[in-house]
Amino acid sequence: MTEAAPIDPEALIIEMGRRARSAAAKLALAPTEIKAAALAAAAAAIRESTDAILSANGEDMARGTANGLSAAMLDRLKLTPERIEGIAAGLEAVSRLRDPVGQEIDRDTRPNGLILSRVRVPLGVVGIIYESRPNVTADAGGLAMMAGNAAILRGGSEARSSNRAIHQALQQGLAASGLPEDAIQLVPVSDRAAVGAMLAASGLIDIIVPRGGKSLVARVQAEAKVPVLAHLDGIVHLYIDKAAEPEMARTIALNAKMRRTGICGATETLLIDRAFADPAPILSAIVDAGCELRGTEEIRAIEPRAVAATAEDWDTEYLDAILSATLVDGVEGAMTHIATHGSHHTDAIVTQDEATAERFLNEVDSAIVAWNASTQFADGGEFGLGAEIGIATGRLHARGPVALEGLTTYKWRVKGTGQVRP
Amino acid sequence: MTEAAPIDPEALIIEMGRRARSAAAKLALAPTEIKAAALAAAAAAIRESTDAILSANGEDMARGTANGLSAAMLDRLKLTPERIEGIAAGLEAVSRLRDPVGQEIDRDTRPNGLILSRVRVPLGVVGIIYESRPNVTADAGGLAMMAGNAAILRGGSEARSSNRAIHQALQQGLAASGLPEDAIQLVPVSDRAAVGAMLAASGLIDIIVPRGGKSLVARVQAEAKVPVLAHLDGIVHLYIDKAAEPEMARTIALNAKMRRTGICGATETLLIDRAFADPAPILSAIVDAGCELRGTEEIRAIEPRAVAATAEDWDTEYLDAILSATLVDGVEGAMTHIATHGSHHTDAIVTQDEATAERFLNEVDSAIVAWNASTQFADGGEFGLGAEIGIATGRLHARGPVALEGLTTYKWRVKGTGQVRP
Repeated sequence: MTEAAPIDPEALIIEMGRRARSAAAKLALAPTEIKAAALAAAAAAIRESTDAILSANGEDMARGTANGLSAAMLDRLKLTPERIEGIAAGLEAVSRLRDPVGQEIDRDTRPNGLILSRVRVPLGVVGIIYESRPNVTADAGGLAMMAGNAAILRGGSEARSSNRAIHQALQQGLAASGLPEDAIQLVPVSDRAAVGAMLAASGLIDIIVPRGGKSLVARVQAEAKVPVLAHLDGIVHLYIDKAAEPEMARTIALNAKMRRTGICGATETLLIDRAFADPAPILSAIVDAGCELRGTEEIRAIEPRAVAATAEDWDTEYLDAILSATLVDGVEGAMTHIATHGSHHTDAIVTQDEATAERFLNEVDSAIVAWNASTQFADGGEFGLGAEIGIATGRLHARGPVALEGLTTYKWRVKGTGQVRP
Repeated sequence: MTEAAPIDPEALIIEMGRRARSAAAKLALAPTEIKAAALAAAAAAIRESTDAILSANGEDMARGTANGLSAAMLDRLKLTPERIEGIAAGLEAVSRLRDPVGQEIDRDTRPNGLILSRVRVPLGVVGIIYESRPNVTADAGGLAMMAGNAAILRGGSEARSSNRAIHQALQQGLAASGLPEDAIQLVPVSDRAAVGAMLAASGLIDIIVPRGGKSLVARVQAEAKVPVLAHLDGIVHLYIDKAAEPEMARTIALNAKMRRTGICGATETLLIDRAFADPAPILSAIVDAGCELRGTEEIRAIEPRAVAATAEDWDTEYLDAILSATLVDGVEGAMTHIATHGSHHTDAIVTQDEATAERFLNEVDSAIVAWNASTQFADGGEFGLGAEIGIATGRLHARGPVALEGLTTYKWRVKGTGQVRP
């Protein structure tokens, strides 16, 4: 893509959207092997461009340092030879996933002989709005393309040089396979008006996927006229039932909270059955692991190192080594708490009682419900989906980890032999 | 439901939405038999209330006549004993459909032993906004409920007495089966602000289904902050390929256009391959059947009774005995025309050439694509789905005829034996 002259962001997005729609029509018909070859070629181009990408990233890092970006932001922005190899390997992994396009979902022959089938087709044009991580350019662009979609990528301005270098490699892959370069476009301007124009581009962009912090997701959900695939909060609960196996409960609780505290599947609130025999070892292991425990009076009576939880704690996603905890009256009490404070992301129960587990799995209204497993499994890779474009907590279309299949929809195919409707 | 005192429509919808959400939580867990029994009881109540419904409908008809409603609107508004029996029978038909809730979509065991399954769950709260047809109160309310959803119904003010009478019968059915009466609520105020409040009620209403004319659908699509399941236009094409069997082509064309001209699956534009041997009998049969034919000069040279088509004709859904027609250069020309002027609803090809048909079915980007069959089959009943809540042309979630399954989404169930994430 050539560098655009200063231009009205709205006109720019409309023009990019038109080109994307045209590319999407070609992508929708591209055979699996061609799409896979394009991703493999893009991976090779990424590897060959390692020096150029590192140099571009150096510009971004220097600018970011000068602009006073936080250490956490600089870490997300930073690329290393290992991270670049990871980007290339990720594209290759996506190229090996099963292509959902053309899969038959179901088929029925009507009494009049009409044969009806539903067949997966791409969504069309996917808009991806992200922040400082340059790997999203390849991860999200590659995943959208493999599912037959055109992608319009709008990365954070702090990563613009890195994104441009990675995007060039993607375009080399597309060109090498004869696919339209407009299949993966990068918005060349970094002002926020371009985001607003994307959110308003219904008819040109079919779905928006925000990848980033809560303020980005909240803005996108509030403003978008285009459907959004995302989750705002991951207020994830782990419930320890009275019939939990104590050692399993302790191990799962530690992993669910502390394996990585910054991911959306990390547990934020621990609910323990008032009838559970011995909560002390669980609470004490969590504090011993370096976690701040915020509890009710009952919790503090069991684990004196806990501090007092406030009303806000039950509605807070810490994404940090902090856990809120309360006792509840059985699975009923746990489900009431989750219905009141949950965010429909991931909630888990630990119990040896299958009937109690079934109740929890049926009745908790979340995208992912788990039994005797860590909430940190909430991930497309762990679900066997390959890469994921994100985790969705909306109620329509795709829920939970969204990968290739979630980037498709379906069409109805009707085959007749001359039937007319009576 | 008791009659509300004059009240702020926004506050009213929020209150109704809260009650609907609470009812939806119960509905989501209701066994199939209970939901079916509620619909059967509602059907019985509809039959028993025939006199009361007719009397209420008489009020609406008198008011409508006094207010100068068109004959077409009065016909849509009018109920007869036969139409009331049709409403009752429709509820019974829905009660016998296969319940999608709880169906397992797929299942996978991961290398670590976790068992993942996707299971259908209801969407939640469905808002239905409709115009003068009182039968929608029962049809849409019953279908939404059978799929485990709560419904908020907002009918046209011209049908308010009829809707209230039908709604009372639905509530009797719910009460008889022990289901919450808030599962199907009728908005008691008829000012348009209530519609605006529904369209803005994201978080309380999960999806809006507009049922009515184009101006209603356009307003809903333009204003809604809630996802909308609908189609705005049904600019439906029938393409007669050079390899079409001539008699089949004539029969399908006549049926596709003239069986019923006012439904969304009615063909609006006829595309004939320039290489098709003998288009004259098809065009002449259409004009003989009382259809106005608007054609290009080539068409008029073949069928002199055709009038000249204007540029607007190719983008017009007539919903009337009018057909636009043009010759095109093969399937390629037909697909270009459809891509330019279509509305992604239903498009069909007539040909004996399977390769050409496959190209058309693959490449035409519409919710329904058909081969050697009338476009008028675009209907949930004809698709074997039982009733339909509407036909959707959006690209996400459900496309084409939307019935019970389209009123559900899914959750992920994870079953472990103590797994933690490495």
